[in-house]
Amino acid sequence: MIKNKKAIVLVSGGMDSLLTLAIAIKQDVEPYTLHVNYGQNTQQKELKAYKNINNYYNIGAERSLIVDIDYLKKIGGSTLLGTSFNIKKNDKIPNSYVPFRNANILSIAVSWAEVIGANYIFIGASEVDFSGYPDCRREFFDVFEKTIELGTRPDTKIKILTPLISMTKEDIVRKGVELDIPFELSWSCYYNEEYACGECPSCKLRINGFKKAKVNDPIKYSSIL
Amino acid sequence: MIKNKKAIVLVSGGMDSLLTLAIAIKQDVEPYTLHVNYGQNTQQKELKAYKNINNYYNIGAERSLIVDIDYLKKIGGSTLLGTSFNIKKNDKIPNSYVPFRNANILSIAVSWAEVIGANYIFIGASEVDFSGYPDCRREFFDVFEKTIELGTRPDTKIKILTPLISMTKEDIVRKGVELDIPFELSWSCYYNEEYACGECPSCKLRINGFKKAKVNDPIKYSSIL
Repeated sequence: MIKNKKAIVLVSGGMDSLLTLAIAIKQDVEPYTLHVNYGQNTQQKELKAYKNINNYYNIGAERSLIVDIDYLKKIGGSTLLGTSFNIKKNDKIPNSYVPFRNANILSIAVSWAEVIGANYIFIGASEVDFSGYPDCRREFFDVFEKTIELGTRPDTKIKILTPLISMTKEDIVRKGVELDIPFELSWSCYYNEEYACGECPSCKLRINGFKKAKVNDPIKYSSIL
Repeated sequence: MIKNKKAIVLVSGGMDSLLTLAIAIKQDVEPYTLHVNYGQNTQQKELKAYKNINNYYNIGAERSLIVDIDYLKKIGGSTLLGTSFNIKKNDKIPNSYVPFRNANILSIAVSWAEVIGANYIFIGASEVDFSGYPDCRREFFDVFEKTIELGTRPDTKIKILTPLISMTKEDIVRKGVELDIPFELSWSCYYNEEYACGECPSCKLRINGFKKAKVNDPIKYSSIL
């Protein structure tokens, strides 16, 4: 039973992680939220969204961890970091892919989980709409669970839960409405911080999800003002 | 063939990572060194050892990466971080174990390796003398390789090489003598920064290794001055 157990929820500040947190809370876990700055373009805006979401769900500082891993920006290799990828690519992975980002983030979550005795890590990854990222696939999380099993104390038991893994953006919007999540506090745009650009891949997916679900997106877009 | 290929070597500044670097260089790889500060007690001394080792082997800034992950100290859970572990332990893992540290460090190495196109990561882990750490076992590195395979671009191929995995400290000293490594530049003590304490588990292992190999350890110990 997951009820009343400690669980770490990765909260970037986007719509998917917001819904993931709401789903975790719905299951009556004791939620701890982790937010990671990795030098992405909209870092400040995402941090603000994270803090607002924590406030909304009454998650205090003692159950919140904000970590800076700006070395990912130094390493580069992603348009999301404002850096280009300088090696030849023969694949269909989007150039916004940040090399091995989710392993870096999950490793932090596991270190924290092991110390506080949390048995679950929730991550809002979806294979459906953004299947281009190799580290967003369930098979990646499956093998990461084995890595956790072998790399931590024998008593440590940590599962990675991905409730959104098979959901489209339309499903996510519908489920968000059902759970009454504060969409207005979330941020998805890759490039802007005041108004969402409406044109980057992340904005397009979000706009399309709301459109298909026939729900009004409460955030403002500069392109359709 | 590994010759002339780019390889990342994790260099903490200790004797094991020093030997690992020497072994990598002996195989004619193009070495890139990664040093990670994680808030450990002797952070400054280890960083200095790392820099001296880089200088010794003519590894310039363009092939060096120093990363701070002091969030591990914030998370705590290890005597190595000056923090105690506050959950019940029913195992035989030493209390200097830093929760999931090697996964955090390897994830950084993989991100860097993917961007620069390195196919190998060398790590100086040994199962023999320090088998108490779960994330120092070959089976952990094996499953981590699978995590890399699934979590990176399809074209990315990265192997984790552990040349010291079956070596005792005595073996390490002997091999170090054979490869003429600068033992005097390395640092092993967990607690002191001027003279090694000679009493912590890491000092004891080192002292014992030199003793068994009948080799003189060039560093100074406060306990046996």
